[in-house]
Amino acid sequence: MPLMKSWVASANDPAHPFPLNNLPYGVFSTKGTEPRCGVAIGDMILDMAAAEESGLIRLMDEPLFDVPYWNDLMEQGPAVWAALRERLTALLTAGAAEREKVEPLLVPQAEATLHMPFVVSEYTDFYAGKHHAFNVGTMFRGPENALPPNWLHIPIGYNGRASSVVVSGTEIRRPWGQLKGPNDDRPRFAPSARFDIELEMGAIVGTASEGPITVQEADANIFGYVLLNDWSARDIQAWEYQPLGPFQAKATATSISPWIVTKAALEPFRTDTPPREVELLDHLKDCGPMLYDIELEVTLAPEGKPATTIARTNYKEMYYSSAQQLAHHTTCGCPMNVGDLLGSGTISGPTKDSRGSLLELSWGGKEPIRLDTGETRSFIEDGDTLTLKGAARGDGYTIGFGDCVGKLLPALEDPYAR
Amino acid sequence: MPLMKSWVASANDPAHPFPLNNLPYGVFSTKGTEPRCGVAIGDMILDMAAAEESGLIRLMDEPLFDVPYWNDLMEQGPAVWAALRERLTALLTAGAAEREKVEPLLVPQAEATLHMPFVVSEYTDFYAGKHHAFNVGTMFRGPENALPPNWLHIPIGYNGRASSVVVSGTEIRRPWGQLKGPNDDRPRFAPSARFDIELEMGAIVGTASEGPITVQEADANIFGYVLLNDWSARDIQAWEYQPLGPFQAKATATSISPWIVTKAALEPFRTDTPPREVELLDHLKDCGPMLYDIELEVTLAPEGKPATTIARTNYKEMYYSSAQQLAHHTTCGCPMNVGDLLGSGTISGPTKDSRGSLLELSWGGKEPIRLDTGETRSFIEDGDTLTLKGAARGDGYTIGFGDCVGKLLPALEDPYAR
Repeated sequence: MPLMKSWVASANDPAHPFPLNNLPYGVFSTKGTEPRCGVAIGDMILDMAAAEESGLIRLMDEPLFDVPYWNDLMEQGPAVWAALRERLTALLTAGAAEREKVEPLLVPQAEATLHMPFVVSEYTDFYAGKHHAFNVGTMFRGPENALPPNWLHIPIGYNGRASSVVVSGTEIRRPWGQLKGPNDDRPRFAPSARFDIELEMGAIVGTASEGPITVQEADANIFGYVLLNDWSARDIQAWEYQPLGPFQAKATATSISPWIVTKAALEPFRTDTPPREVELLDHLKDCGPMLYDIELEVTLAPEGKPATTIARTNYKEMYYSSAQQLAHHTTCGCPMNVGDLLGSGTISGPTKDSRGSLLELSWGGKEPIRLDTGETRSFIEDGDTLTLKGAARGDGYTIGFGDCVGKLLPALEDPYAR
Repeated sequence: MPLMKSWVASANDPAHPFPLNNLPYGVFSTKGTEPRCGVAIGDMILDMAAAEESGLIRLMDEPLFDVPYWNDLMEQGPAVWAALRERLTALLTAGAAEREKVEPLLVPQAEATLHMPFVVSEYTDFYAGKHHAFNVGTMFRGPENALPPNWLHIPIGYNGRASSVVVSGTEIRRPWGQLKGPNDDRPRFAPSARFDIELEMGAIVGTASEGPITVQEADANIFGYVLLNDWSARDIQAWEYQPLGPFQAKATATSISPWIVTKAALEPFRTDTPPREVELLDHLKDCGPMLYDIELEVTLAPEGKPATTIARTNYKEMYYSSAQQLAHHTTCGCPMNVGDLLGSGTISGPTKDSRGSLLELSWGGKEPIRLDTGETRSFIEDGDTLTLKGAARGDGYTIGFGDCVGKLLPALEDPYAR
């Protein structure tokens, strides 16, 4: 599929993240207005509440878009998702008859503040990238025992904390936590000294389910994707995670990019999962290409200094697709709801410069990386800004994700001071 | 504090679970009516929506009780919680002036269906009972290494799945899952054969928080308590839980008792945590008695047969209080919301008959327990009904919890059949 031309000129640049082929969904406000649904097109945002109010877009009897979340649209199901995309395409395509009516409803992105695009119902994080699992396992258990015995059979996941999910741009406060190094006699309560990122994709559940669902059904239930940074306190994690998994190490914040890129926009970029080393059980088997070819990048900018790209990788490096993760999530009968967010797990590639966390990039702090500024990093330092970028490259166009940005603020001096 | 006399005669029985001293909060409906808030008093329920409608109870400008959850009341904060309790006590006390107006608003419990008493925001489950942790650790790692190194320093917890929390009476379907026994060559997908209960208390967060909070603040933020049965598929858990903790093993269902017993009702029963083997760090230290003396019991009834009491224990056996768990939960800055539910962890006592799970009672299936019917059990069998009971014994009165009941249905023959 080539670039689809829009009458919004900026959308026709082959490198622009938001061409007519994309149409990602966000929530925005401008000075003095309430957050509401919007669709990115080029440098502009189509005010969906205004488009609905004016009657240009009307999918259901009740309004769907004058709210600060896309959950109401998701609730309507895939036929309505498709109808909306069709209508948006018709309104914004080059030569559209209703251009005159639509144009006044466009708001420059430069004037908008972006908010969380949906209400996160519950948040689950997976550990489904093989290079990442192998790297981390090697550091802790050696290469022979790097992958846990179950790893090639199920997408390992754990429940995260939905209340800690924030939109790109939210500043992140370095957490305190209980820490105990291997040579310490006893634990202490102190700021995390090994605070890290994890480069992930987030899949958003758009259709609820009750009992177990197949991989095919799971794929159909996914509404769209965002970039996701699973901020991780490695030192808190090391002390707390046995035997029941990460808890406070992962609950300070998880940042997501502000635009939901729909599954429909990503269709041309579907790819297969890698060859299987062991055959999956039937209920988890691939039934079509369910990963996506999305180029990913992480940059780190020290306070007041330019950014260095510290990793480049691709979502197609994952071992399990989000559809497989969602199918596994339901095997026990676990009910899934609209707005559930599934983190893919850290997306590392096979090479050293394609690792999606500082833990891997600096090999546990033993091999600090060098920034373009000449500084080195083992983990994040106060004032550093971390940015995740994602783009699928089409034939003369780009499907961009909108950056996922977070700056690390220093820990509070006394977290209990009021 | 002695029994407080009510004009509702049944509430004055010293053994009745719902005297005027209790006043637990639930959600009920009667034939042809919508679920709404109610307060148990003796054998009756005070219809709170009707009491508010009539003007007998009016705490805020907006109505709080004509909804199927108590979250709106919780949102108002502790001063309003106290005002409600005071008003209810005045209306229901023996000799109350407004008895004539209140009496028509009482609904017999026998005619009511009980629903989930609140909307669960997120659900966290802890592992904070020492006898349970020691028993389980001994089974898996031997008595020398039974407790993980962190166990005496932090209340170990993991995030559960709020979507799977159900009210007492909901039937539970035996789950399918990926299983691999120690002697199996490869995993298989099959119904769980080691399905179990966990006897717990659930603490309900009534006040939201943003940054770290102290144990004292955490205690103030708790609204009330329920009984909680954390249904657990031991065979799914054994295969999946390394390295990131339990996931599908715990997501089939978690049952709670239908009445929220408020912290105010439990005040006379506060007890200290047990002596510490190692000193806790300051931010987790006890600052007053924050456990409760609540007698607990589990019964098992095979299909169509009488129940056998399989365990008796007490909430005061816990090593960490819910306040300590909640304080720990916030150390990293994790935001907590109204309606968050914290499972205490399995409450086992020091003796064999005080163990809060079949895993412990049957010692991993090696020592099946004998029921009064003559049958034996290692784990739950299809058709078994499991009931948790809880009561604090006062001076001539009882603070009861309302039973937490669940019957196990057989696994679906084909979980993917539609």
